[in-house]
Amino acid sequence: MRELRRVLVTGANGLIGGIVRRHLGRKYALSFLAREAAPGANHVGDICDLGSIRPAFVGADAVVHLAATSSVDALWDDVFADNIAGTYNVFEAAREHGVRRIVFASSNHVVGMYEAEAAPAIYDLPDDRVFDAATPVRPDSLYGVSKVFGEALGRLYADRYGMDVVCLRIGTVRADDDPTRAIAGHPFAAFPELTAEQAGHRLRATWLSHRDCARLIRAALEAPVHWAVVYGTSDNPRRLWDLQAGRDLLGYEPLDSAPA
Amino acid sequence: MRELRRVLVTGANGLIGGIVRRHLGRKYALSFLAREAAPGANHVGDICDLGSIRPAFVGADAVVHLAATSSVDALWDDVFADNIAGTYNVFEAAREHGVRRIVFASSNHVVGMYEAEAAPAIYDLPDDRVFDAATPVRPDSLYGVSKVFGEALGRLYADRYGMDVVCLRIGTVRADDDPTRAIAGHPFAAFPELTAEQAGHRLRATWLSHRDCARLIRAALEAPVHWAVVYGTSDNPRRLWDLQAGRDLLGYEPLDSAPA
Repeated sequence: MRELRRVLVTGANGLIGGIVRRHLGRKYALSFLAREAAPGANHVGDICDLGSIRPAFVGADAVVHLAATSSVDALWDDVFADNIAGTYNVFEAAREHGVRRIVFASSNHVVGMYEAEAAPAIYDLPDDRVFDAATPVRPDSLYGVSKVFGEALGRLYADRYGMDVVCLRIGTVRADDDPTRAIAGHPFAAFPELTAEQAGHRLRATWLSHRDCARLIRAALEAPVHWAVVYGTSDNPRRLWDLQAGRDLLGYEPLDSAPA
Repeated sequence: MRELRRVLVTGANGLIGGIVRRHLGRKYALSFLAREAAPGANHVGDICDLGSIRPAFVGADAVVHLAATSSVDALWDDVFADNIAGTYNVFEAAREHGVRRIVFASSNHVVGMYEAEAAPAIYDLPDDRVFDAATPVRPDSLYGVSKVFGEALGRLYADRYGMDVVCLRIGTVRADDDPTRAIAGHPFAAFPELTAEQAGHRLRATWLSHRDCARLIRAALEAPVHWAVVYGTSDNPRRLWDLQAGRDLLGYEPLDSAPA
């Protein structure tokens, strides 16, 4: 198989877009699509407008689709436009241009209601419950529902058009890359109020380091799989989500680990 | 629990809307919402426009949400407007008005790719493969993807707002109610070409009689469940989809059976 070399990243100006730029820029010929002009955004276009993003897909071997409304408390209008219409447009532009692989930034929020129901006890160290990709979806938010949609669309494009599709249910990536500085309160609407200590435990459970995030995306670009859904966190002792499928299907082995 | 008595049906002018009207009109105080004025449509409104449908939900105990673009080969614009925005608007209007239960017309096409892959052998009588609700979704079409979305949204509304939600993965309902008159060709885009005989076998596998359809919807309105996803066909010897969950969760027992 021809090497995947030219990789288009949507959501160039986001946190994970920056991680890809810094960590994977030597490995791939990266190009970046962003809604607004910014240093390093080769292409300016709005994923809500298929025509505006087509030029970015010319010549791309693979797409890392990060552009989204990423707030779990997002309202319907934003989720509907950015995450539903936008994700369809990205898959469709990729299909039109013969893109061979899409790495789709899904989210643990597709199963977040299990966590909301079990919180805060599930963050405790003696609690060894782990949700894997066979767990039926149970979104905690409209954001989570939109990611269920994106995974289903990805499956369709894999089945119908032969595209390789890897969905990453990404944990918590922090701008400061620090797994120890959490904020008390509601992590999001479906959740119980967490104390500072509980919020700290949650972050230590769900943290994905920048370095591991880049390794995960690289593994998703290179693994010899046609279709996969995997969770992405660092190797955290308090983790809630299965890492074995990531190892087995993608060869993703986290290097970092939040403190217990 | 107070009896569910006032039932709003969306998609009043569709095939299944007519079945509900004929078979369940004595059991419930039915009202009907349709996009266009028609005899028996008490409410005219477009599910794509939340404001236009709100009046129909006043006083409703339950909603049977049938309105949709129902062609499996539908293009994105229709699926996006009618099945995604429209279904969100129906759930949201129901929540706003304190509706206690939604019966959502989902579809076997949420798992249709398994069938497409196994066709036509899977229609043969000695083939006893059956897909149940634990089978991971694998839509065969954008229509199927939109029904995955609707089920996920239903789960969110059940979890977040305490609404009872029953998703029915409905088989093949025919205007003539005849399970023996199928048409050769592509049943839909993802499928192999079927001969007249194979298409006949498919229809005998997937048929849901009018009478059983009404019984299924009644069971979905009355069963003491908070959340369920079940397949709906008659008791067909060639069936592809599990009927046990319908029996166990809803007490749905089909009376009809397509000939083998």
